[in-house]
Amino acid sequence: MITVAEAEKLVLAQVREYGTQTLPFEQALGYVLAEDLKADRDLPPFNRVTMDGIALKYASVKKGIKIFRIKATQAAGEKPVELAQEDECIEIMTGAVLPLSADTVIRYEDLEISEGKATLLPAEMKQGQNLHLRGADKKQGDMVAKAGVVVSPAVISLAASIGKSQLLVKTVPRVMIISSGDELVDVDETPSSFQIRKSNSYTIKAVLKKHNINADLLHIPDDPVITRQKISNCIQNYDVLLLSGGISMGRFDYIPQALEDSGVEKLFHKVAQRPGKPFWFGRHGQSGALVFAFPGNPVATFMCLHRYFLTWLNATLGLPAKKVTYAALGNDFTFKPELRYFLQVTLQTNEQAQLIAIPVEGNGSGDFANLADTEAFLELPMERSEFKKGEVFRVWRFTD
Amino acid sequence: MITVAEAEKLVLAQVREYGTQTLPFEQALGYVLAEDLKADRDLPPFNRVTMDGIALKYASVKKGIKIFRIKATQAAGEKPVELAQEDECIEIMTGAVLPLSADTVIRYEDLEISEGKATLLPAEMKQGQNLHLRGADKKQGDMVAKAGVVVSPAVISLAASIGKSQLLVKTVPRVMIISSGDELVDVDETPSSFQIRKSNSYTIKAVLKKHNINADLLHIPDDPVITRQKISNCIQNYDVLLLSGGISMGRFDYIPQALEDSGVEKLFHKVAQRPGKPFWFGRHGQSGALVFAFPGNPVATFMCLHRYFLTWLNATLGLPAKKVTYAALGNDFTFKPELRYFLQVTLQTNEQAQLIAIPVEGNGSGDFANLADTEAFLELPMERSEFKKGEVFRVWRFTD
Repeated sequence: MITVAEAEKLVLAQVREYGTQTLPFEQALGYVLAEDLKADRDLPPFNRVTMDGIALKYASVKKGIKIFRIKATQAAGEKPVELAQEDECIEIMTGAVLPLSADTVIRYEDLEISEGKATLLPAEMKQGQNLHLRGADKKQGDMVAKAGVVVSPAVISLAASIGKSQLLVKTVPRVMIISSGDELVDVDETPSSFQIRKSNSYTIKAVLKKHNINADLLHIPDDPVITRQKISNCIQNYDVLLLSGGISMGRFDYIPQALEDSGVEKLFHKVAQRPGKPFWFGRHGQSGALVFAFPGNPVATFMCLHRYFLTWLNATLGLPAKKVTYAALGNDFTFKPELRYFLQVTLQTNEQAQLIAIPVEGNGSGDFANLADTEAFLELPMERSEFKKGEVFRVWRFTD
Repeated sequence: MITVAEAEKLVLAQVREYGTQTLPFEQALGYVLAEDLKADRDLPPFNRVTMDGIALKYASVKKGIKIFRIKATQAAGEKPVELAQEDECIEIMTGAVLPLSADTVIRYEDLEISEGKATLLPAEMKQGQNLHLRGADKKQGDMVAKAGVVVSPAVISLAASIGKSQLLVKTVPRVMIISSGDELVDVDETPSSFQIRKSNSYTIKAVLKKHNINADLLHIPDDPVITRQKISNCIQNYDVLLLSGGISMGRFDYIPQALEDSGVEKLFHKVAQRPGKPFWFGRHGQSGALVFAFPGNPVATFMCLHRYFLTWLNATLGLPAKKVTYAALGNDFTFKPELRYFLQVTLQTNEQAQLIAIPVEGNGSGDFANLADTEAFLELPMERSEFKKGEVFRVWRFTD
C-alpha cells in the first residue's frame, strides 16, 4: 500500500499530450488556450472619448475662451472632424475618436448648450481629461492572454476584441466511463430486490462535463469473454478508462484479468486513504491509455476523481498546479485508522476571512447521500487520529 | 445617485418566477431542482456486502467452528442463497445481498480457501462486520435532495440511484444581450481606424452559459426607428434584456428613448460605485421584462453582471442568498472618490487558512486586459479612501 503523496506522484508521472484543436472562440470556454493571444492593434486603438460632451483644445480654455461654437457632432464610429479655429469645438460621444486637433473632453454636465454653442460651466478641468488614450491598455503585439490559461469569459472578451474568432485549444482526452456487474441496472429500469441502479458513472460524467470532456458510458456484464472484448476495444479507442467498482478480489470481477490480458500494466493498487483505499491505477504500454479504477463506493469514486484524475488532467492540459488552499477545521474530529482521511465538509469564511471547514455528518465513506451537501474534502494527515477545531489542513473544493 | 446597497435592494425587489420544466436528469446539471427527491427504496435497499469473502453466522464462529464448507458462491446481483447448517458459509462478493441466514462477512484476506472449504485465519472479528445495512443511508421516503438546490454531480448521482431519470427544474429566464452603436463591428470584421470590435456581449454570454442560460445576441445600429422596433420586440419576447453601453446622455444613444417609448420604467440610474456608476435598471410594467443596462466599459459590465444580475438570478431561481465570503487585503490600497470601489483581485489562502485578496494592477476601470488575471472583486466601502493590508472586506468570486 502506498501513500497519497506517492500515488499522486505516480499518477503525475503519466502526464500525456493530446494535441490541440481549433474551435470557434465562443465554444472554447473552459478549454485551455494553446496559443498566445496578442493585440492586433493598440488597445484602445485610438484616443477614445469616455464621456459624452465636447472635444476642444485645452489651450483655448487656458486663453480664457468660455463659449465654443459647435462645428460638428461626432458619434462613436464616425470619422473624426478636425477643429480649424480656437473657439470651435466638436460635440462628441462616448466611444468616439478624439480629433487630432483636440486634446480634452468636457462632459455635458459641465456645459450649457444652446443655439449651436457650448458654454463652459465652472468646473474643475484637466488637460487630457475624459479620454482613454490609444495603447493605454496594450500596445499592438503585446500579449493579452498567454497559452496555458483556461479560456474564461474574460479571455473570450479579449479574443473578441482582437478579432480571434477561432482559438487554438488543448484537446481533452477521450474518456470512457465503465461500470460493471450484474447487480447494476440502468436508471430507467426497475431493480430486483438484490440489484441497485447505476449512479457512479453519471456522477463522473457530470464532473467531466464541467471540464469540457464529453465522456462515453459503457456497462460490462459479469461475463469474462464480453469483459475481455470490451476492455480491449476501449484500450484501443480511448485515452483514459475510468472504472468504478469491479477491481477487487471477487470471483466475478473479470475486469482485472481482462486488463491484464489487454496489456494494461498495474502501476499501483491500494492507497493509504479513506475513502478510496482500493484505488487501482494502470497504463497500457503500447497505446499509452491510462486506467483509473476507482472503488465502487460512490464517495470514494468522487474523492479519487477529484484528487487524482482532475489533478492529472490539470497537469496533462499544461495548467499550473492548482493553488493549495487551506481551511481550518470547524469542529474537533477523530479518525483512528492509519490512513489519510478525506473529510466531507462545507466551507464558509468568518469575519477574519479565515476559511472554515465544517464536517458534514454521515454514516461513513459509503454515505453518498451527504455528498449533495458537501463542498469540499479536507485532507487529514495519516499520522494522527485527533484533529482539533481551528487546526488548518489542505482543502479540495469541488468548484476549483 | 443611490448606494450599492440600495441598488441591490431595488434589483432584488424585482425577483420573478419563470416556472419549471422537466429535463432528462443528465441535462439538468447546474439547474435548480424544483422538486424534492425522495428515496424510492431504503438506501441501501438490502444488507449489502462490502468485502469479497464469505458470509456466515457469527454464532457458529463463537461456538468455535473454524472451517466452513462453501455451500454456494453468490455474486452481486444474484438471488441470495441461504445457509442450512451451522458449518456452512456462502462465498460472497462485494455488492451482493447478505443471505437472511447469515449476519457477518469475513474477507478473503482473513481466510484460506481450498477444496470447497474456508478456514478462518486468526483476525479480529465483529458480528455484523463488512456490511452496509439496509436503510443505513436513507429509509424509503426520506428526502435525498430538497427542491431549491443546484443540481450538482452529487445530485445527479442521487437522482440516478432513486430512478429519477427526469427532473423537474426551474426554468431560467430568456435573456437577450444587446449591444449598440455604429462604432462596434463583429469579431470577424475588420474595424476601421475609428471602430472597435464587440466584446462585452460575448463576455456576458459566456458568463450566462455557466448558469445554463443560452442567451441570444442582438446588435442595434445607431438608428432611432430600428432601435425602437428592436427594443419593443425584445421586450415582448424576452424576460431580461442585458445591455452594455448605449445608456448615456449622448446624442446618438437612441436606446433610452426607445425604452421609454416601449413602456420600460426606469427604477434607478447611477450607483455610487466604480466601475459601473452609470448602471441603469428598469422594468416593463405590462410584460414584467427587466432591463439591466450596464455601462459599456468592459470591467463595469463584468462587475455589474456578477454583483447585480447574478444576485438577482440567484434569488429568482429560489436559491438561498449567496454565502458572504470575506478576504483580507494583501496590499495597502488607496481609492479617493466617494464611491464603493470594486477592486480586481486574485485569491489565495495563507497557512492560517486566511483568504488573501491580492490587487491586480491595472490602468483603472477600463482595463479589461487585466480581467483575465482576476478571480474576484473585493468590495471596498465608500466612506473611506485608505485601505490597509490585512483589513477584511467582502469578496465576490467569479466561480461562486
